[in-house]
Amino acid sequence: MRTNIMITISTLLSLIATPVLSKEVKVTSPNGEIKVTFSDEQDQLSYNVEFNNQSVIDDSALGLVFKEQAAFADGFKITKVEKSFNYSKWEQPWGERRVVEDNHNEVIISAVNAELNNAIYSIRARVFDDGIGFRYEVPKQDNYKQVEIVKELTEFTLADAQNSKAFWIPARGWNRYEYVYNETPVYEAQHVHTPVTFKTSNNVHLSIHEAALVDYAAMTLNQRRPGKYIADLTPWYDGIAVKTQTSFKSPWRTIQIADDATGLLNSDLILNLNEPNKLGDVSWVNPGKYVGIWWEMHINKAAWGTTDPNAPHGATTENTKKYIDFAAKYGFDGVLVEGWNEGWDGDWFFNGDVFSFTKNYPDFDIKQLADYGAKKGVKLIGHHETSGNVTNYRNQMQDALDLYQDLGVEQIKTGYVADGGNIKRIDDKGIVRKEWHDGQFMVNEYLFNIEEAAKRKISINTHEPVKDTGLRRTYPNWITREGARGQEFNAWGTPPNPPEHIPMLAFTRMLSGPMDFTPGIFDMGFRDQNFQQNGQGAKINRPQTTLAKQLASYVVLYSPIQMAADLPENYEAKMDAFQFIRDVPTDWEQSIALDGEVGDFVVFARKERKTERYSGHDWYLGAITNEDAREIEVSLDFLESGKRFEAQIYRDGDKANWINNPYDYFIEKKPVTSEDVLTLKLATSGGTAIRFKALN
Amino acid sequence: MRTNIMITISTLLSLIATPVLSKEVKVTSPNGEIKVTFSDEQDQLSYNVEFNNQSVIDDSALGLVFKEQAAFADGFKITKVEKSFNYSKWEQPWGERRVVEDNHNEVIISAVNAELNNAIYSIRARVFDDGIGFRYEVPKQDNYKQVEIVKELTEFTLADAQNSKAFWIPARGWNRYEYVYNETPVYEAQHVHTPVTFKTSNNVHLSIHEAALVDYAAMTLNQRRPGKYIADLTPWYDGIAVKTQTSFKSPWRTIQIADDATGLLNSDLILNLNEPNKLGDVSWVNPGKYVGIWWEMHINKAAWGTTDPNAPHGATTENTKKYIDFAAKYGFDGVLVEGWNEGWDGDWFFNGDVFSFTKNYPDFDIKQLADYGAKKGVKLIGHHETSGNVTNYRNQMQDALDLYQDLGVEQIKTGYVADGGNIKRIDDKGIVRKEWHDGQFMVNEYLFNIEEAAKRKISINTHEPVKDTGLRRTYPNWITREGARGQEFNAWGTPPNPPEHIPMLAFTRMLSGPMDFTPGIFDMGFRDQNFQQNGQGAKINRPQTTLAKQLASYVVLYSPIQMAADLPENYEAKMDAFQFIRDVPTDWEQSIALDGEVGDFVVFARKERKTERYSGHDWYLGAITNEDAREIEVSLDFLESGKRFEAQIYRDGDKANWINNPYDYFIEKKPVTSEDVLTLKLATSGGTAIRFKALN
Repeated sequence: MRTNIMITISTLLSLIATPVLSKEVKVTSPNGEIKVTFSDEQDQLSYNVEFNNQSVIDDSALGLVFKEQAAFADGFKITKVEKSFNYSKWEQPWGERRVVEDNHNEVIISAVNAELNNAIYSIRARVFDDGIGFRYEVPKQDNYKQVEIVKELTEFTLADAQNSKAFWIPARGWNRYEYVYNETPVYEAQHVHTPVTFKTSNNVHLSIHEAALVDYAAMTLNQRRPGKYIADLTPWYDGIAVKTQTSFKSPWRTIQIADDATGLLNSDLILNLNEPNKLGDVSWVNPGKYVGIWWEMHINKAAWGTTDPNAPHGATTENTKKYIDFAAKYGFDGVLVEGWNEGWDGDWFFNGDVFSFTKNYPDFDIKQLADYGAKKGVKLIGHHETSGNVTNYRNQMQDALDLYQDLGVEQIKTGYVADGGNIKRIDDKGIVRKEWHDGQFMVNEYLFNIEEAAKRKISINTHEPVKDTGLRRTYPNWITREGARGQEFNAWGTPPNPPEHIPMLAFTRMLSGPMDFTPGIFDMGFRDQNFQQNGQGAKINRPQTTLAKQLASYVVLYSPIQMAADLPENYEAKMDAFQFIRDVPTDWEQSIALDGEVGDFVVFARKERKTERYSGHDWYLGAITNEDAREIEVSLDFLESGKRFEAQIYRDGDKANWINNPYDYFIEKKPVTSEDVLTLKLATSGGTAIRFKALN
Repeated sequence: MRTNIMITISTLLSLIATPVLSKEVKVTSPNGEIKVTFSDEQDQLSYNVEFNNQSVIDDSALGLVFKEQAAFADGFKITKVEKSFNYSKWEQPWGERRVVEDNHNEVIISAVNAELNNAIYSIRARVFDDGIGFRYEVPKQDNYKQVEIVKELTEFTLADAQNSKAFWIPARGWNRYEYVYNETPVYEAQHVHTPVTFKTSNNVHLSIHEAALVDYAAMTLNQRRPGKYIADLTPWYDGIAVKTQTSFKSPWRTIQIADDATGLLNSDLILNLNEPNKLGDVSWVNPGKYVGIWWEMHINKAAWGTTDPNAPHGATTENTKKYIDFAAKYGFDGVLVEGWNEGWDGDWFFNGDVFSFTKNYPDFDIKQLADYGAKKGVKLIGHHETSGNVTNYRNQMQDALDLYQDLGVEQIKTGYVADGGNIKRIDDKGIVRKEWHDGQFMVNEYLFNIEEAAKRKISINTHEPVKDTGLRRTYPNWITREGARGQEFNAWGTPPNPPEHIPMLAFTRMLSGPMDFTPGIFDMGFRDQNFQQNGQGAKINRPQTTLAKQLASYVVLYSPIQMAADLPENYEAKMDAFQFIRDVPTDWEQSIALDGEVGDFVVFARKERKTERYSGHDWYLGAITNEDAREIEVSLDFLESGKRFEAQIYRDGDKANWINNPYDYFIEKKPVTSEDVLTLKLATSGGTAIRFKALN
């Protein structure tokens, strides 16, 4: 039973109103290392950020531009300042850690334009030790009742742009978030999605993102002048960014700041800026692990549809039973089945209206399978692929969710496969409109799906989503999502995910929230079984990793649900390695990033959370590297001193390399304590996965 | 006296109405090498293009999306086809050639959507031997009276994208068109301005652009899928692309096609698609050459304003007289003076409202100088720098143009210095709106300026313009423009224009129309007079060329007005080299690109047009190269056979190189005829300029 525990030291210290003369407002982090200064001297509100007394964000403008009314830009003067601080702890029903600390100083700055009939807006900013967040709050006021925001003027002017590196994916592209990450000088990162991560010449790491994206357009960043990014909101089909009315609040614009790379990972900034759980009792949200009828379609052994002459229908009653048996035998909680419903035989990519979300194919007896699974303690995981035709989905959503509820399905993987900008909806005049996955329309549409699912005690795993902005705090049934290149790109992507992909994700995508990456592929030879002998390992589609790195990924890439993605027979052929996947939990008492550099390598340690299944005593470690083999020394001082553990180490063998010897793995066990230091030897695109089994 | 001469063989061969069953419509170039096929089979109009029986443009969609009404996309069927052809010649009052051939096959395809109340639109396409143009024509119809276009669906799907190179600049950036050109695989050219040039794996050269951009947004290209570009119209501040009403026509979308690089240069496609001259007698438009008070400000020897303690005001009566004397002595027609008017002492970049276009500074006696020049046959060239504050300019434009007309000023250089997207206008409610230089608003604003100038018999040279789309045919007083990185970037740019810049421009920017590049810098040492000795030639701001390349640029970069950009004393120090600039004309009977490769080198031959000053017998040649020195064999068979010429050759010396020996030039003269072949030896970033003086 999970309950929320709040330990409040003091929520409000002071409330100060400052006279009109004040031109600068400063607010610092609790530890004093981050200082934010707001000012109205530039005739437009602006801010800057210092870290350890050096500028990281130079003077950057704030403001909003509307279609009808005059902009909130020039002529706004600070008229009121309210300061407060917060120190509290709160508990997550599931997550990377159970207890989260929220320690920040806050300021609310109100600014008025006397020449615009006293038009007014506020900036609320919170400064934590791990970064800052600020948002616009616009109260109801004459002349700004209904507003259409065409542009947001928020800037992020990188102080060290000339010498900094950027780690980024391009924004507003056809492939949404599914791009290989780039590492370039800042100046080459023109138009980017968030999270976007920067590393300055003195190793300061920054990551810009947003929190609590609700009823607003997603923010991308566009480099308008060298080093100066400006918010670039994803528009509706008609070019407007946000259609709203006062009073309204923007999402929090966030800047994580750390003096090293792992400082970005040991942060709860995004969660802390989100609203608390509003669903009440969420004991029906269950972390766990699953298998499924999915990978076989991506490697062309089966088909989603029933009429492919070259590939049998994957989603059959018989095949599903096989997976349920496998899941039950090896302790998996769910079986995902894709291709169960009518519509896959049509031209679904271009015309998703063909999908039914209530009618199964004749060879998939959904009721029988739900019962079969229930008897064995395994649940069916639902699948709603919309192919971006959201009106078709909307029209069936209630019935489809009711159907699953009746069948005891408690998780659904949704999909919105469509090019960026090509989500199809029918408006109230019956006219087709095309929207972006991260425009305001879809931001609301995804959340509607979450809310409807919550009414039926169903959790959602969104594929082709809008980026995560921490709403899992407010809606704990929004358990995970895709929103980056996942394992499937290793089946057919051009190119497959490169060796640096996961070390890149760890410091970018993973700062936004959990990812359903679906690790755990054991057979790399599905395109060419002889790839090792004929030296073709780098040229075919396959995961560009060693097998040990696949194991380590379960610890490195956090998600409350994790898939063992491969076919059952590939696990049964390597039961020793598979043991790690069987053991690893997906819910944590605590997580610590121990070491790493963006795009190079990362080491995580996590302590399991106590549940019926897990004692709550064991720790797990995952270390992965990019194309460079490396040795990493890891101190085990995160373990509780005085306790003894058996380290069950799954590592790359001495001759392992990802290209033609990915299967060389080695398993060893040895007693360890918190006094020990391990030297991890990672092969090229390799990894180490460790279970620290508590002995006392 | 220039008059338009039309030689029409036949303008209309046939008018055929084709029945509704027709699904494909084919139209070819007169020589049969280019074949365009339109189709409605995809349930949306589409087209493709073959060249010499190979696909160059694969199936590409057509259509328009509106804010209110249903889109012109799916459901349109071809109902009517009209075919015709044209063979004519017409004369330009000035230009690269006097007589232009217009030889094309045309088709007008009408398409109707029965389920949208028979909504209808047409595509008019013309296919020439040097490429194609097509445009949308939307007649007046119920339900589509007032329309706001939010998106154009026109695609350009490059058939050989995977193996093609792109030569491009990024679109929608802060620096408008002023970027160094990129040469990359197509897949890296995400969002580009036009003209954009491609080179396929079998040397087919394509360049995509538009013609006759009037009352519409400019088109940029965005790569939506690998190799598939879609039109990306530059929006109004509120996100709408085009605000118009039926009936309307879009600009022509153009694709130049050639089997080699120089085929792109020997083309009049853009001009041929524009409307004929509507200004009537334009004998007051005078090609010529000018000098001016301009470069000295860019190299910090003088200032535009009057209060800079480090630099004297450039635009003084005394300094201008010096330039008028120089111009008169050496045969230049005009003197440009920047900084003559009040406003340069304020914060003009951020607040251009400070500019007056009628009040001169006290130390600039404009009336006296106009008279002084008139007596010597030299005209003042006006200057209107708006700094992007177009309402301020509009409010003064009539008075400012009248003033110049009274003073006998017949050319004005205008300027719109402001970041992309930051043109400032005040709407009719008094609200500030920010627009793009190439959005529909500015497209109309620039043309208004042209039309108002024409009423006063004034010609316009637009800096920070919208791109050229051939409107000089319709408005021959729109003589030239900037719209790319010009010479000024060599004074202070980061970086200066690289050695390949002019060979890049020749095959991209220059396909759109003339450029006021302002060549002719003789002194490369204005940042460091000792750069040659201390080996810093590549590290300072200066033209990254030899001196001979500066001379050759007058022939390579076409413009009806050309500046001798340097300070008078630098020309007087090298009178032998300066002779070429004194001789070279700026108006041509004929132009032929003889050789070249995109970004590498180019060779042009041009024959002078007969005027009062020029006999009409001489030819000129300009050859320039990028960072690679090269030898180019040039056959002189473009010269009239049987005539004798003295070739006056200005070339790189044997030891010349751009980095530390740019001044090594050599002048020789020798008799030649059309039988001769010259071997041109170009240094690294070097050039050769030749005047072929007719002897008989």
